[in-house]
Amino acid sequence: MTSDKIVTACLLIIGSEILSGRTQDANLAFIAKGLNEVGVRLREVRVIPDVAETIIAAVNETRAKFDYVFTTGGIGPTHDDITSECIARAFGVRWALNEEARRRLAAGYANPADLNEARLRMAHVPEGAVLIDNPVSRAPGFRIGNVFIMAGVPRIMQAMFDGIKHGLAGGAPVLSRTVTSGLPEGVLAEGLGKLQERYPDFDIGSYPYYRRGGYGTSLVARGTDAERLAAIVEALFALIRELGGEPYEGDPPA
Amino acid sequence: MTSDKIVTACLLIIGSEILSGRTQDANLAFIAKGLNEVGVRLREVRVIPDVAETIIAAVNETRAKFDYVFTTGGIGPTHDDITSECIARAFGVRWALNEEARRRLAAGYANPADLNEARLRMAHVPEGAVLIDNPVSRAPGFRIGNVFIMAGVPRIMQAMFDGIKHGLAGGAPVLSRTVTSGLPEGVLAEGLGKLQERYPDFDIGSYPYYRRGGYGTSLVARGTDAERLAAIVEALFALIRELGGEPYEGDPPA
Repeated sequence: MTSDKIVTACLLIIGSEILSGRTQDANLAFIAKGLNEVGVRLREVRVIPDVAETIIAAVNETRAKFDYVFTTGGIGPTHDDITSECIARAFGVRWALNEEARRRLAAGYANPADLNEARLRMAHVPEGAVLIDNPVSRAPGFRIGNVFIMAGVPRIMQAMFDGIKHGLAGGAPVLSRTVTSGLPEGVLAEGLGKLQERYPDFDIGSYPYYRRGGYGTSLVARGTDAERLAAIVEALFALIRELGGEPYEGDPPA
Repeated sequence: MTSDKIVTACLLIIGSEILSGRTQDANLAFIAKGLNEVGVRLREVRVIPDVAETIIAAVNETRAKFDYVFTTGGIGPTHDDITSECIARAFGVRWALNEEARRRLAAGYANPADLNEARLRMAHVPEGAVLIDNPVSRAPGFRIGNVFIMAGVPRIMQAMFDGIKHGLAGGAPVLSRTVTSGLPEGVLAEGLGKLQERYPDFDIGSYPYYRRGGYGTSLVARGTDAERLAAIVEALFALIRELGGEPYEGDPPA
């Protein structure tokens, strides 16, 4: 059973390396698709630097505004890894050693001395936080309130997210279907606008593409009702044919 | 000559297709690197949906907070292209046909009837806006106040951005150098933290990597003073050698 409530989420990508252009974010699309599956709508993403005041303000603003907040990045052992402490400050709780986290970290080092002071920082979490398992490199993420703190390294983030995804209380999964043709957006626009008016509970998006093989437009309908979605796809086929195009379902060839 | 003032920017990526995970953003890194070159610091990126109230609120919040705001997406001819109207509402000015924009658009159509009502929307801009040239597909972007409105299609956005970049009043260009070694972050952390304390005017970031060929950490120093940057690179080499690693300048092999 699914509910009609719309459940929303925000993703905070914490990392100066993304803002400098050095690193291309690889987490947004993965999280967005995973949230679709469990019926949670990603409504905003912010990329912010490793600056304490900025992180604290963003966490407090967004956790009040969205059902769920996810963060990636800034939970390693170095001086620029300040996410975890900032979350504690945002929630107004102590940032303290978590014995279970320490145990998990320690299990990764043959020599106990290797669990040095810097690495022990990764075993500190805000008081009251629940650990998120890290099957890749042990140092856990955590959840506190409606905020989920995850690693920035994609392989680790993905393992963490897959572990928590099915515990989220989402609404109906978001379904989407794509219809493509070689017609330009400007020709489709009028009919498309009318179709959107007829289906206000759906998002109908229009995405032009330019490829070596030619150009055209992909039309994407997104919503929760499969039958109404099928009717929209049928209407898109009819619209494209009426305008002299050749519709097909799916994205254009790469 | 460069000034010491720090000039900041925010990028608003407008497009539900990014938030749904359908489309991977390809504009952030390009704009970030371009801004580095002209001494403007990208301090925040937000990805927001094609929802009028959200766009208007984000534009008004960020244009007050940063020196420059750039937007990508939502300036095409279809019903979901609402960025331009929203900018007019954010600035409290009329959204009106711009004769020069209409002329540029019209030049692209052999048959005047092809410049239909939907396409004419792309010739409307907020009153007082200055057009940004679009050498790829004619429909212009525009600037109003400290806000620059650009297309979302990467090829078009890049052409628009290259046209305006050198008109921005930036500070000193941001320089960066990278030193990599096979040492893990947890071993480097202590020395790195001390180095950061000695150079508070620099950002020293630590980025672990995991590749088929092994793992390690890249250390990236970013700031405006080339001589101090060289001293940091020297200190990073010394630190890594002291810890038993083999430093080299640059990113790890892909």
